[in-house]
Amino acid sequence: MNQPFDRVFNFSAGPCTLPVEVLEEAKEDLLNYKGVGMSVMEMSHRSKPFEAILAQAEADLRKLLGVPNNYKVLFLQGGASLQFSMAPLCFLGAGQSADYVVTGAWGEKAYEAANLVGATNLAYDGKGINYNDVPKFDTIPLNPNAAYVHFTSNETIHGVQFHSDPTTEAPLICDMSSDIISRPVDVSKYAMIYAGAQKNMGPAGVTVVIIRDDLLEKVPAKMHPILDYRLHAKNGSMYNTPPCWSIYMCGLVYKYILRHGGVAGAQERNLWKSKLIYQTIDGAPEFFKGHAVHHARSTMNVTFTLPNDELTAAFLKEAEATHLDGLKGHRSVGGIRASIYNAFPLDGCQALAKFMWEFATKHA
Amino acid sequence: MNQPFDRVFNFSAGPCTLPVEVLEEAKEDLLNYKGVGMSVMEMSHRSKPFEAILAQAEADLRKLLGVPNNYKVLFLQGGASLQFSMAPLCFLGAGQSADYVVTGAWGEKAYEAANLVGATNLAYDGKGINYNDVPKFDTIPLNPNAAYVHFTSNETIHGVQFHSDPTTEAPLICDMSSDIISRPVDVSKYAMIYAGAQKNMGPAGVTVVIIRDDLLEKVPAKMHPILDYRLHAKNGSMYNTPPCWSIYMCGLVYKYILRHGGVAGAQERNLWKSKLIYQTIDGAPEFFKGHAVHHARSTMNVTFTLPNDELTAAFLKEAEATHLDGLKGHRSVGGIRASIYNAFPLDGCQALAKFMWEFATKHA
Repeated sequence: MNQPFDRVFNFSAGPCTLPVEVLEEAKEDLLNYKGVGMSVMEMSHRSKPFEAILAQAEADLRKLLGVPNNYKVLFLQGGASLQFSMAPLCFLGAGQSADYVVTGAWGEKAYEAANLVGATNLAYDGKGINYNDVPKFDTIPLNPNAAYVHFTSNETIHGVQFHSDPTTEAPLICDMSSDIISRPVDVSKYAMIYAGAQKNMGPAGVTVVIIRDDLLEKVPAKMHPILDYRLHAKNGSMYNTPPCWSIYMCGLVYKYILRHGGVAGAQERNLWKSKLIYQTIDGAPEFFKGHAVHHARSTMNVTFTLPNDELTAAFLKEAEATHLDGLKGHRSVGGIRASIYNAFPLDGCQALAKFMWEFATKHA
Repeated sequence: MNQPFDRVFNFSAGPCTLPVEVLEEAKEDLLNYKGVGMSVMEMSHRSKPFEAILAQAEADLRKLLGVPNNYKVLFLQGGASLQFSMAPLCFLGAGQSADYVVTGAWGEKAYEAANLVGATNLAYDGKGINYNDVPKFDTIPLNPNAAYVHFTSNETIHGVQFHSDPTTEAPLICDMSSDIISRPVDVSKYAMIYAGAQKNMGPAGVTVVIIRDDLLEKVPAKMHPILDYRLHAKNGSMYNTPPCWSIYMCGLVYKYILRHGGVAGAQERNLWKSKLIYQTIDGAPEFFKGHAVHHARSTMNVTFTLPNDELTAAFLKEAEATHLDGLKGHRSVGGIRASIYNAFPLDGCQALAKFMWEFATKHA
C-alpha cells in the first residue's frame, strides 16, 4: 500500500483517495473489460457482464457488513442529499413525526429537508457546542412512536463520530456516507442505512441504500417512481439506468477491503491512522487544538485548529508544498481537516504527523 | 476511428459505445490526471482541477449546441427518470396543466410521472400505432396556456425521431436523452432540455439540463432542495457532490465531437451510418420490415423486424458470433434494434448492413 512516487497524499473530505491497486485494475480493463470487447462504461446495464458486476458488488457488500437476508441492498443516484428528501417523502406520513438527532452540518441538512415534507422533532441538536460532541442515545428524549429516528454516524465537517450502533424503539435511519465499511456495524439495529460512495467506497455518483423489507412496505402507493425505494428494490437497482461505472468501482473497492481483512481490518487501520494524528495534536496542546471532544473523535476526519489564521495559512501552504493536499478545514470549524478514509494510506498519516510535529516545533 | 481488433461492435441502446480515443485518454490519465497526482475519481469536487474540468465541459457543451447566455447548463444525477418527476414538481403548479406529446415509451413514462404531480393533457398519443410515427407539432391541439409542453425528441425503443425543433407558445421541455449533440438544435426554441448522458455524451450517471433563466424563476419557494433546479443553478451544479468522473468523461466526449466537426459533423456521420442500415432494410422489403414510418426514422435507433421469431433468434445468434453485439429489440417492438449513437463507428454499420444482406439472401 505504498504511494507511487508521482501521487500526492490527498486529504480531501470526499471525493477522495481510492486504493492504488483498484485504480490499476480499472486502468487495465478500461477499454476491454475481461475480454468482453468493451469498457464497463459502454456496457448495457441489461447485459450479462454488467449484471454480474452488480450482483457481485451487492454480494460483497453484504459479506462485508453482514447484511441480513431481510434487507435489500440498492445502488442509486443522487447522493445522500437525495436521501435527505426521499426518506421523509417515503416514510414520514401525515399525522406522523420523525426524530432527528443532529450532530453536524449533514444531519442539519437532512433535518431541514424533512421539515419540507412533514412533522419533525429535533431530538438532539449539537449546534450550540458547534457540533464538537455526539450524545449517548439513551440520554436523548426520543419518541418511541416516531415514524423513524434519523442520525449521521460520522460528521465530516466537524469530525465527530458515533462509535457504536444505537438501539432505538422507532425504526432507525442512518446516513453512513462518511464511515460505511470503515468499521463493523450491526446492520440489524437499523431500518435503513444510506451512504454516498465517495468517501469510503468509490467515486462520486452512486449511493448505497440498505433497507429492511418491512420499511419498504411503508412507502405510500402513489410515490414518484424515481423516489420510490420499493420500485428500486423490485427492479434490483435497475428501475432506471444505474451509474454503472461507479458501481463497478465500488465493487473493486469491496474486493479490496475483503482482501485486506474486511471491515475489521479496515477499522484497525483507521484507528491506527487517526491515532497517529490525534496523538500529535495531544502532544502539542499549546499549539494544536482538536475540535471534537475525545470520545467523539472521528477516525475518518481529524479536525483541529492552530493558534491563529496566519499559522493556519502557513501550515496549509507548506503542507501542500510537501504533497500533503486538501487539508483546509471547512469554514464553520476553521483550521485543518485531515480526511483519512479507508483507502488513505498509513504513509500519508505518518507524513502528516511528522509535518505537524516539525511545524509546531518551528513555530511554537 | 477504426475499431481495435479486440473490441466488439456494441449496438446497445445505452449505455453504449464511447469513442476509442476518449477511452484511451481516460486510461492514460487514470491514476494521475495531468500530473496533479491523483485520479479524477479521487479529486475533491471543490478542487481547482475539478472546477476546471466542470467549467470546460460546460463551455464545450455550450459551444457545441450554441447555448444562449440566458440559459444555465447543469450536470445533475438521477437520469431522465428523475427529470420526469423534477420537471412537474418544479413547473406544474396548482391550477395549471401541462401538455404531453407522447411518441414512445419514454414519453409515456414522463407523462405518467407528471400525472402524480398535477393536471396534464395528453395532447398527442401514438400508442394506438405502437409509436411508429411522430406528429407535426402544428397539427397537435396544444394549450397555449399550458405550464409547459413536454416531448421526447428521439424514442429509443421504437426508433422514431423528430427531425426539427418545434415551435410552441407554452414553454417547451424536451427529453433529448437519446439524440443530444447528435445533430444541431436551436436551443432558443426550448425552455428546458434534459438528457441522460449514456447515449451520446458519456457514461451513465450524469444528466445534463439546459434551462432558460425565466423558467428557473418559476420554481416554488418551498421545493425539496435536491429537486430544485434553481438551487442547482445557483451553486453551479455543486449543490451536492456531482458525479465527477461521468462529467469528466462527457467533457472528453465534447472535445472529441468538437475535433470532429461539431454537431454538424456528428449529424452527417449519423445520417450516413443510419442510411446504410435503412437502405438494407428497404432493399429486402420481403424480409426486413422497418418499424418507423420513413419520415420519422431515427438516426440513433434503427428498429426492424424479420419474418418470424425463429429467424430473429438465428439473426441475433449469428450476429453475436461475428461480434455484432446488443441487437435484440425491445419486447414491445420485437425484432432487431441497432443503436448507433454518435460514437458508434461507421465500420460497425457497414458490418451490420453486410451481415443483414447475407442473412436475408441465405434465408429468403
